Amino acid sequence: MQSYHIGQNAEISRTFDDSDVATFAELSGDTNPIHLDAAYAGESPFGAQIVHGMLVSSLFSTLFGTQLPGEGVVYLGQTLQFRAPVYFGDTITARVELIKLREDKPIGTFACRCTNQSGAIVIDGEAVLKLP
Amino acid sequence: MQSYHIGQNAEISRTFDDSDVATFAELSGDTNPIHLDAAYAGESPFGAQIVHGMLVSSLFSTLFGTQLPGEGVVYLGQTLQFRAPVYFGDTITARVELIKLREDKPIGTFACRCTNQSGAIVIDGEAVLKLP
Repeated sequence: MQSYHIGQNAEISRTFDDSDVATFAELSGDTNPIHLDAAYAGESPFGAQIVHGMLVSSLFSTLFGTQLPGEGVVYLGQTLQFRAPVYFGDTITARVELIKLREDKPIGTFACRCTNQSGAIVIDGEAVLKLP
Repeated sequence: MQSYHIGQNAEISRTFDDSDVATFAELSGDTNPIHLDAAYAGESPFGAQIVHGMLVSSLFSTLFGTQLPGEGVVYLGQTLQFRAPVYFGDTITARVELIKLREDKPIGTFACRCTNQSGAIVIDGEAVLKLP
């Protein structure tokens, strides 16, 4: 096992646009008009098109798969609370931080949070990973 | 609010291929070689390339966004346990079932499960939705 410590963290920022949302809608099959139809979304309680929550959440997977811990990780679980909508053009910063490390096995728990460019939390949750 | 009942469910089946995984890797930035590099993955404990867990999990979002309940849904939360790998060419069936309905608010809890073509559970968890 590599060396880890509580508080170890990584972050990444990303701006989602209509092309990202169209690609994810096609890939996943989630063609809900709140994501794809400007007129429909404008009349909805959200007031505009929003990015799929699962697409934004994929930033956590990206951090785990490429930065902390990167190669050799095994994703065991993830919880997600979708706290606020992500609109097209929002710049989202995803951050993961090691908050618990088992002593008997190489398994870590990470706090996960996505904030928007105003600092509002849009998604949070926890992930459990088998660590290399 | 539409009418709902405990046990109400929906399902969808999908086979993931290398093109889906390449698209998701590019979209999310999760370029971990367990997904993209056949030689690396072949030497890993998984023995072959695997599909991103978050891509497979997006089938739950697809069911909620397009079938049950469909338009007007608001995704509040999702838990995911990644129980077994999904390999390229596996046919995954995602199923969601309403297991709890609040009496004071239009909020439902759904059991979520993905199984592969052999019937093995590859992902399970729960989702909480605001219902239209």
